[in-house]
Formats: sequence, structure tokens, C-alpha cells
Amino acid sequence: MSSMPFAISLAGLSFMLTVIWGVPLLRVLHHFKIGKIIRVDEPGFHQVKMGTPTMGGVLFILPVALITILLNAVNIIGMQSIGRSILVPLIVMFAYAILGALDDWEGIRGKRRGDGMRARTKFIIQVILAIVTALVLKYMLGVPELIIPGIHFVMDIGVLYVPIAAFIIIGASNAVNFTDGLDGLAGLIAATAFITYGGIAMLQGQIFVGRFSFTIVGALFGFLWFNVHPASLFMGDTGSLSLGATLGVIALMTGQWTIFPLIAIIPLSEALSVIIQVGYFKLTRRIYGEGRRVFKMAPIHLHFELLGWSETQVVQRFWLISLLAAMLGVGLALV
Amino acid sequence: MSSMPFAISLAGLSFMLTVIWGVPLLRVLHHFKIGKIIRVDEPGFHQVKMGTPTMGGVLFILPVALITILLNAVNIIGMQSIGRSILVPLIVMFAYAILGALDDWEGIRGKRRGDGMRARTKFIIQVILAIVTALVLKYMLGVPELIIPGIHFVMDIGVLYVPIAAFIIIGASNAVNFTDGLDGLAGLIAATAFITYGGIAMLQGQIFVGRFSFTIVGALFGFLWFNVHPASLFMGDTGSLSLGATLGVIALMTGQWTIFPLIAIIPLSEALSVIIQVGYFKLTRRIYGEGRRVFKMAPIHLHFELLGWSETQVVQRFWLISLLAAMLGVGLALV
Repeated sequence: MSSMPFAISLAGLSFMLTVIWGVPLLRVLHHFKIGKIIRVDEPGFHQVKMGTPTMGGVLFILPVALITILLNAVNIIGMQSIGRSILVPLIVMFAYAILGALDDWEGIRGKRRGDGMRARTKFIIQVILAIVTALVLKYMLGVPELIIPGIHFVMDIGVLYVPIAAFIIIGASNAVNFTDGLDGLAGLIAATAFITYGGIAMLQGQIFVGRFSFTIVGALFGFLWFNVHPASLFMGDTGSLSLGATLGVIALMTGQWTIFPLIAIIPLSEALSVIIQVGYFKLTRRIYGEGRRVFKMAPIHLHFELLGWSETQVVQRFWLISLLAAMLGVGLALV
Repeated sequence: MSSMPFAISLAGLSFMLTVIWGVPLLRVLHHFKIGKIIRVDEPGFHQVKMGTPTMGGVLFILPVALITILLNAVNIIGMQSIGRSILVPLIVMFAYAILGALDDWEGIRGKRRGDGMRARTKFIIQVILAIVTALVLKYMLGVPELIIPGIHFVMDIGVLYVPIAAFIIIGASNAVNFTDGLDGLAGLIAATAFITYGGIAMLQGQIFVGRFSFTIVGALFGFLWFNVHPASLFMGDTGSLSLGATLGVIALMTGQWTIFPLIAIIPLSEALSVIIQVGYFKLTRRIYGEGRRVFKMAPIHLHFELLGWSETQVVQRFWLISLLAAMLGVGLALV
């Protein structure tokens, strides 16, 4: 555990870096009118969010990239295995951020204002990126493919690893994207998940993965400084797609992905609520001729808001559940 | 670390217990009109908090006591050293809770409505309780008196221990009391501190102290469920005096109290802001004939609210700072 103080200092460093450069970034975003367009089908009280700067993902992605690259410069240039192992989540973070940024930009300026990129195009790119990443994880990095909690048994699962890993990356990316809809929610939930997996990685001796995670945690705290209700900045798809995919990769690198549904219980529930809502609507429309709904609105955070919870209540209560689930997950992983 | 899952399960258990019995408790408090009286000198926007049920400290104190006593019943009855060691923070928690409850009750029903018990009476009782606790910690439990971070050197500091320990308990108790003024603030800050010291205790092998801390964390999460903005319940002095004193005792039991100023950075800042504000006011009144202020209002969370931060922004940003400071503290303790 002697490497813990350094990892924590990195979190502190990236927090300060993020808070400091957040101020000029906010000014730039305002200047170029990079403002969120709130869709008319969202609850009425969300209309006040109209025009709040978005694409705030760059606020945490750039400091993380800067710190990680500087810290690992020697290893990365020398293409040593340590350097390479950290290049994978770093490149994934960038790739999904670019995809998210294109989507955000389409939503603000493009023909599909308020909607963003075509869902199918976005999905195909996500799938391709995820499969490539899964292949790299298996055949180039040789990460532990599956650690069974409780008995610490490391298992190879053969070629099955590729579809599973790709599914985790795509799923996490979209699930965090669904989670991002209330001030502070996605940032807080993602930070908690990265602390958890960062801690697991440190305990496994995967110091570089741990450091990378804690750098992200610090930067997310910095982002939350501006994103807390009432938010002066949203992360946008730039942030959420990228955070989710990176989280999936980190989970895979620890081999402890069987506890991922616990650690990411909120993103999972958000994604499931959308699937259930849409599925049930289509099913009932076919049967009864008119579509019916399970939730007042999906993703599920909107359901609770419409039940009368305040935005802060939804965010904090979801976070409390998430924290307890994460603690349970760590408990299982460490047994 | 194999005892971690059990400690975490305790947190989960006390969380659920607290959330479940919070609902009938809220009804009882409403029925007997145990509502907070907001003083007229608080910022105007705090007047909406008038009448919100207070004394919510019982919501987390009773489940913690129940779980801890059941769990340690055999040891406590047999008066074994393990049982005794957990009796100390438990009794401190109760004693300060009763003191706080008397104070809350005075504030709601007594002659000194809106103010509570006389400051001097309250302080004298706090001091007596703290000195007795310090003596018990030193002469009956024989806790590690001082662990110097970085070199893990355990030192005896002789009779000096008693005033230092008493000061820590009294200081923490009052500091958390000052911190309690915004929805979710004191609970969130205290929970973070208990997680930190609970983790340190577990790593030291003080399993029972660790379990007790995590039980408190779970109960605080349960309390936060109701206390998050807009709060439907306040902890009152019943909660804050008790939480602070208990936190001080736990810090002392780990011997790692030199990092306490970091772990309790927010309560410390709140207390200091009051001391500075009052001291400067008195000093300038003597010099210039009229008192001047350093902060717009003390404790310092009101200063930031008056600067235009939203209540949620103050709470979350204070918590972010607190989290980073706690991480730094753990880093130092584990070096």
C-alpha cells in the first residue's frame, strides 16, 4: 500500500488542475455559445438548463491525458509493457470522447439540433472501437480474463472473452450516457466507480491502472465543482460516452468485471429502465394497439423527479445506493 | 482485509434499518411538533427551514447502538477487553446525544426558544465528559497514545495525553455542531471522516472499532436519505454534538489523531471561522469603537452562501475538499 499516497496526490493534482483551468474553459464555451439544447419532451422544469455550456468532458479528459502522458512518458516512448497498458484506457478515453464530441456538436450546430448524431452511426462506431479494444486487451496486454470473486481464481475464457469485453465497454459507455441527465449525477457515480476499481487495481499491484483511475477521480471532482446543482457546465456525450467506456476498460483490466453490475448499479439501472420502457411500449402497442409505459419517464432518474423528488434528492440518493453497492462489490472482491 | 466484507455488510444493514424506521420517526416528530426554530439573524432564505423536524440524531444513534450492542453482547456482558473497548465510543455517543437532546429541547420548548441551553452549562458538561473519557482511554483501554505518521512510531506522551484527548473530543463535538447548518452538510462530512478512520482501524487490526465506524457510516447514509436538500429532517444538537465527540474518540482510539485536522478539515474550518469572526469583532470594537467582520457571516458555510453559492454547491464543494483532504490524510497515515 506504500504506493497509495502517490496515487492520491495525483488525484489532488488533477483536481486542482481541473478547477483552475475550468474557469477559462467556461468563458470559451460561453463565447462560442456551446450551449445545451434541452429537448421539449423533457420535464418542464429542465428548460432552465437550456443554454448551459456542454462538452464539459474536455474539462476532465485533457488534464487526465496530460498527467498520465507526462507521468508515463518514458515508458510510453520506450513502448514498455507498463506504458502500453496505460495507453489502452487512455486511447479508449480519447476515441470515445471524440465520438461524443461529434455527437454533441451535431446536437448544437448540425442539422439534427437537439438530437445529435444518428443513433445507428454512433452505435456502429462504438461497436468497432469496443471490439478492437477487446482484442488488444486479450492478445496484446494479456490481462487476467476473469477473476472469480471469493476464491480469487483466475480463469481464461478463450475467444468468448472478446464479445463479453466488447459488450461491457459498449454497455458501460451507453449506460453512463443515460445516467448523465441531472446536475452532478454522472460525475459523482463515475467517480465512485473509479475510486472502487482504482482501489482494487492498487491492491492487485496494478499500480499504473490505479494511478490512472485516481487521476480520473481527481479530475471528476474538479468537474463536479462546476457541475454541482445549479450546474454551470455539462459533460455532454464528450464526457459520458468516454467515461463509461474507460470505466469498462479499467474493470476489464482488473479482471474483476463480475462485480461490475454492483459497482455500476446506477448506470445499469438507467440503461435497463430505458430498455424496459421502450420494450414494454412497443409490446403493448402491438397487443393493445396503444403503447403503455412502466415508468413515468425513462431513464429512471426522470421517473423519480416526476414522483416529486428534488434534483438534489435524486442525485444524492442514487449516489448513496451506488456507494453501498460499491462497498458490497469491494467486499465480495476482497473476500 | 478478510474482515472488510462483514464491516461493509454492517454499513448496509444499518443503512436499511435507518431508512426503514426513518419514516415512522418522521411522523412522530411531526405529530409532537419537534420543529426547528430558525433564528432571525440567519440569512433570509433559511426561513423556509422553519418547522422542519429536528432531533433527527436519534434516527442514526439508535440503530447504531442496537447493532453494536447485539453484535458485542457476549463480549460486553463478559466485560472482555474487546467489549469494553467498544463500550467507550458507544457511551460517549449516548452521553453527548443526551446533552444535545436537552439543548434541542430547550431550543424548541424551553424558556430559551431558538437558542437552546446556556452555552456555559453546555460547555462545562462537555468538558467533564471529555476528561472522564480521556482518562478511561489512557488508563483503562491503554490505546496507542500517539502514532507518528510516516514512521509508524507509537509514542507514550504521559499525562499530557489527558488534556490533548479531552481537547480533541470537545473540539470535534463543537466543530461538527458548527458544521451542521446546511442540508446534508454535517452528515456527509461526518460519514466521510468515519469511513476514513474506520478504514484506518481495520488496517490496524482494530476490527471492532472499524465495525463500529462502518455501522455509523451506514446509519448516516440512512439519515442523509431524509436530510438531503430539501431536508425533511435535521440532526439537531442531538446528532451533531454526539457525532463529533464519537469521531474524536475513534480518532484517539486509532492513535492517528495528528491527521485529524486533515480528516476533519471542514469542521475545523467552521470552528476557526467562528473563533476568528468573534475574536476580530471584539478586537476591532475595542480598538475602533465599532466591531468589524472578516466573513460575511460565520460559520463559514453561511459566508459562501451569502457570496451566491447555492446550498447544494456549498455542501458538495465542502465535501469535495473534505474528501481530498481525507485521502491525503490516509495517504500520510499509510506511508
